[in-house]
Amino acid sequence: MKKVNFCEQNDFSDSAFRRLLIHDSPYFKILNFNFKAGQELPVHSHEIEGQVSIVVYEGVGEFLGKGDETIPAKAGDVLICDIAEPHGIRAKSDMRVVVTIAPPI
Amino acid sequence: MKKVNFCEQNDFSDSAFRRLLIHDSPYFKILNFNFKAGQELPVHSHEIEGQVSIVVYEGVGEFLGKGDETIPAKAGDVLICDIAEPHGIRAKSDMRVVVTIAPPI
Repeated sequence: MKKVNFCEQNDFSDSAFRRLLIHDSPYFKILNFNFKAGQELPVHSHEIEGQVSIVVYEGVGEFLGKGDETIPAKAGDVLICDIAEPHGIRAKSDMRVVVTIAPPI
Repeated sequence: MKKVNFCEQNDFSDSAFRRLLIHDSPYFKILNFNFKAGQELPVHSHEIEGQVSIVVYEGVGEFLGKGDETIPAKAGDVLICDIAEPHGIRAKSDMRVVVTIAPPI
């Protein structure tokens, strides 16, 4: 058993979003991203099998998709998409999210 | 892309913890459990390959392990363990957690 507290072990930065690797194994990769309001993880995708989940722990913003697609994001939301599907995040307030990638990239 | 808000789509019950299936695919299964203070998911394990992550979204309690092992649990904690390793949760306050199982059971 392994425990990580991402609120204590990651912070926010005015210059860029902050990324914390929580766990990486043959089964999944788990990351925490902290965004200050206005920061974003640009839309991206990878031509491989698998899916991504994004749990919004705190804050509000938008999930970004293909083209100009945006989906409102708030605490308690879980977004699921294929790794091959374009996805990103834009923060409207300070935002903490937990991302799980399976199988890991 | 699929979005689920587990705060809106699941509730609490005095009689037993409440379970919401957020997602199930060949890559992972994602569930939300809501516990009222005092409720627990008893220690269990399955003799199969894979890992489980438990993200504490809200509240405080304990992660349960083998024998009488307990590890304090609070919002922002992520617990990771093998599916084959005994694990459980006991809530000390009302608690919302997100569980990811990869590959899915």
